[in-house]
Amino acid sequence: MRLLPQPATENIQLTEVLRALSDPVRLEIVARLAAAGQMNCTVAGDALGVHKSTASHHYRILREAGVVRTEQDGRLKYMSLRHEDLESRFPGLLPAILTATTLHRAPTTSESTVSATASARASAGSR
Amino acid sequence: MRLLPQPATENIQLTEVLRALSDPVRLEIVARLAAAGQMNCTVAGDALGVHKSTASHHYRILREAGVVRTEQDGRLKYMSLRHEDLESRFPGLLPAILTATTLHRAPTTSESTVSATASARASAGSR
Repeated sequence: MRLLPQPATENIQLTEVLRALSDPVRLEIVARLAAAGQMNCTVAGDALGVHKSTASHHYRILREAGVVRTEQDGRLKYMSLRHEDLESRFPGLLPAILTATTLHRAPTTSESTVSATASARASAGSR
Repeated sequence: MRLLPQPATENIQLTEVLRALSDPVRLEIVARLAAAGQMNCTVAGDALGVHKSTASHHYRILREAGVVRTEQDGRLKYMSLRHEDLESRFPGLLPAILTATTLHRAPTTSESTVSATASARASAGSR
């Protein structure tokens, strides 16, 4: 596994993080990473329904801003959130953004809400 | 006093707020508003050291994103943060951004850090 270039924690800039997160597709990537922990970039891109090059562009912006770390294993790339780095640099920022994203997510893109509802129904049905 | 056009609280978008705050001058305006409560736009622009038209541009972006409210009284305009509106829509977001701004403010613009250090020294010296 090779770590792709990223800013050191002390060099992560607030304005860059806010700019990286000021896009609905990138917010969606971050929300999914928060839920999944780590994601294969190809699979994540397919799930987002955007072109591969568009997805790569968004991943790069998130990585260069210091929001995600990306590890490469041969032709595969894996992303994860830099939770602890962001928390140490900007306490409470990422949790507040994730909360806001969850609160105001468009219903049509919110698979997690759909699956949560489905699993709640299944769970209620099994009682 | 006439309130300039602004989005209703329920129409404030996270991506617009993050984009509005992804600029160092606008972050500085927001930090100063947090400290001052309300500011005369002309005075605030002079203090920022940017051209009047640049300052107006930044104020407009902050207002249209829903970050500040602006009231006009004749030729004078007054800005204040939409603290409660933002808190109800995105809990914890503005406080986290203000904390991060205070923590990582550039020393040259950080009057509060300088005065805090000076007062800490004075306090240490007086013991």
